[in-house]
Amino acid sequence: MRKSTRSEVDPFIVMDVMEAARAAEEAGRHIIHMEVGQPSTPAPKAARDRVARALDADALGYTVALGLPDLRRGIAALYARWYGVDLDPARVVVTAGSSGAFLLSFTTLFDSGDRVGLSDPGYPSYRQILKALGLTPVGFPASAANRYLPVPADLPDDLAGLMVASPNNPSGTMLDRAHLAALIEAAAKRDISFISDEIYHGLHYEDRAVSALEISDDVHVINSFSKYFSMTGWRVGWMVVPEDHVRTVERIAQNMFICPPHASQVAALGALEAVDELEENRAVYAANRALMLDGLPKAGFDRIAPPDGAFYVYADVSHLTEDSRALAADILEKAGVAVTPGMDFDPERGATTLRFSYARSTADIEEGLTRLRAYMEARG
Amino acid sequence: MRKSTRSEVDPFIVMDVMEAARAAEEAGRHIIHMEVGQPSTPAPKAARDRVARALDADALGYTVALGLPDLRRGIAALYARWYGVDLDPARVVVTAGSSGAFLLSFTTLFDSGDRVGLSDPGYPSYRQILKALGLTPVGFPASAANRYLPVPADLPDDLAGLMVASPNNPSGTMLDRAHLAALIEAAAKRDISFISDEIYHGLHYEDRAVSALEISDDVHVINSFSKYFSMTGWRVGWMVVPEDHVRTVERIAQNMFICPPHASQVAALGALEAVDELEENRAVYAANRALMLDGLPKAGFDRIAPPDGAFYVYADVSHLTEDSRALAADILEKAGVAVTPGMDFDPERGATTLRFSYARSTADIEEGLTRLRAYMEARG
Repeated sequence: MRKSTRSEVDPFIVMDVMEAARAAEEAGRHIIHMEVGQPSTPAPKAARDRVARALDADALGYTVALGLPDLRRGIAALYARWYGVDLDPARVVVTAGSSGAFLLSFTTLFDSGDRVGLSDPGYPSYRQILKALGLTPVGFPASAANRYLPVPADLPDDLAGLMVASPNNPSGTMLDRAHLAALIEAAAKRDISFISDEIYHGLHYEDRAVSALEISDDVHVINSFSKYFSMTGWRVGWMVVPEDHVRTVERIAQNMFICPPHASQVAALGALEAVDELEENRAVYAANRALMLDGLPKAGFDRIAPPDGAFYVYADVSHLTEDSRALAADILEKAGVAVTPGMDFDPERGATTLRFSYARSTADIEEGLTRLRAYMEARG
Repeated sequence: MRKSTRSEVDPFIVMDVMEAARAAEEAGRHIIHMEVGQPSTPAPKAARDRVARALDADALGYTVALGLPDLRRGIAALYARWYGVDLDPARVVVTAGSSGAFLLSFTTLFDSGDRVGLSDPGYPSYRQILKALGLTPVGFPASAANRYLPVPADLPDDLAGLMVASPNNPSGTMLDRAHLAALIEAAAKRDISFISDEIYHGLHYEDRAVSALEISDDVHVINSFSKYFSMTGWRVGWMVVPEDHVRTVERIAQNMFICPPHASQVAALGALEAVDELEENRAVYAANRALMLDGLPKAGFDRIAPPDGAFYVYADVSHLTEDSRALAADILEKAGVAVTPGMDFDPERGATTLRFSYARSTADIEEGLTRLRAYMEARG
């Protein structure tokens, strides 16, 4: 059988790194994982306890497509707690991770061939999902001077949509309220649908992140229980859409997903209450980040974007290499540290960048930094 | 923000029935649910036990996109057990339910505007998912004389793909080996990609269902843990694809889903071993089916398709109404039995059909049949 043109999505470069790291571990080497994009912690205890109870008490069949009503209310309450925003739970759609929310948002908003703007560097799956849906991703560079975040002057012509992430992956940089508002306003003026990926909200280390919902109701906001709530493998997230989009999203969700995983929704209900445990996790990231901001420059990775949030540091390594993939392979081989070359995030400039994750334990971060420093000293 | 044209998917008619049933229950009435498409049983005990253990022992983070290797091996072994087919686990892709498999299959095979054939009556979400992906669903009638299943002569022109389900939802009818082979052969001759939805396999009452994989390797086969394995809300299923499609499906899955829900994959591993419990469930359906085949004709619903598998009976009610939606509403109101009007499954002829599900307890089926008989006697 023939395959479609839209199915020709790019492979992840990082997969090569992960496979090489796995092979090294299988051969008995000890590897520090600074390539991973997920917490090493499990779901909070309250989440796991709630699932354990439900396993005995509930058949855990289909839920309604928009998600458990209690969970939608709990998520709406989070907007009051985090941002002081009064959000109608009817506008909250529980999804199969932020991945599921992208599928729902893109199909709700865009028709075949529509151009959707993505600033580079950014999360690679936006581009690939758009392509697989028969839509047209339009990458454009966000400058290092603007902390790798888009500004209105960057926007290409003829966009039907614009996807913006703050904190950004891979740079960890955040848009303040004025910059986010300027982008939302520019998009509205040009009739560009605005999608705000807020998956790293909750993981900030100085000022908190600003939600697009603080600025406008006429946006799609996407978030997830994966990062702050430490529930990657559960595949549960959410979106907030304008009131007149809810029925449309619901119908697509009924057909494309039936419902988000029921047990994961139960876990999410527990996670919303696990404030202390999640803030402890965040304190670990904060300590790790401080170590990175001290240790990376000392090792020679001194051209780094200010990591306002998430758990990544994005480094310009153009003074070290024009092939970040080869550099990452060399660091893995000689230092035993897995890092991510920038090409997945920025097809143009990623050959001269690396992403370092500090999502793992503080002991791992300390050891990783020691190894990186020794590697760079040996490299000379 | 404007919505896309592709987002204009049809609402489910059955949702009105379910909402009316819910309202009736809230008002204190007792309703028998013959509208539901899912078992009332939970996941098998072995599945739940395995999840309970994993909650303590495993962080349950992302798995690889194709699914846990043990689960892929277990699914491959099921093909040996059920069909005597020797299947390479490398061709098995674990998915977020059969819903996730449809998204992966359709995007792997078809480009914008491609025509995909669907026989009516059939599962309504095929049509809506195709539309939301910018593809073109082409419905065509399967005749009652052919037990509501397609034959090669039915196929419309210029198809890029053909979706076939056996046992079929809503009719419960199955294609025997010769008929399935004829369809696969006709599709291959015309370069039509063949997708076999086998979600109701395992739920047969006389001969077992035939898998498309017994006939050809050049097909996409889709299945799920939802029905036979009684795990609807867990959202875990699988697909089997030709060897040279695996890498393509993997890349799309990495981007669209990251991975299927981890806890659900763990549950599925347990479910594969729960043969005794699942066969007990099947014995309940078999008893329910016997009651339906006796009771429905006695009540006056005597124009029924032979229900070879699944847990549905599809009845032609053209002698009773030209508006199955009104009939279903009347049955709910007067008899307290929720049934599904046929319009979701067949936009043309569904106004004169009803689907009765026998997925619930035998006591419910007995009571439902008693009520249906009294209703029809009163109706005269």
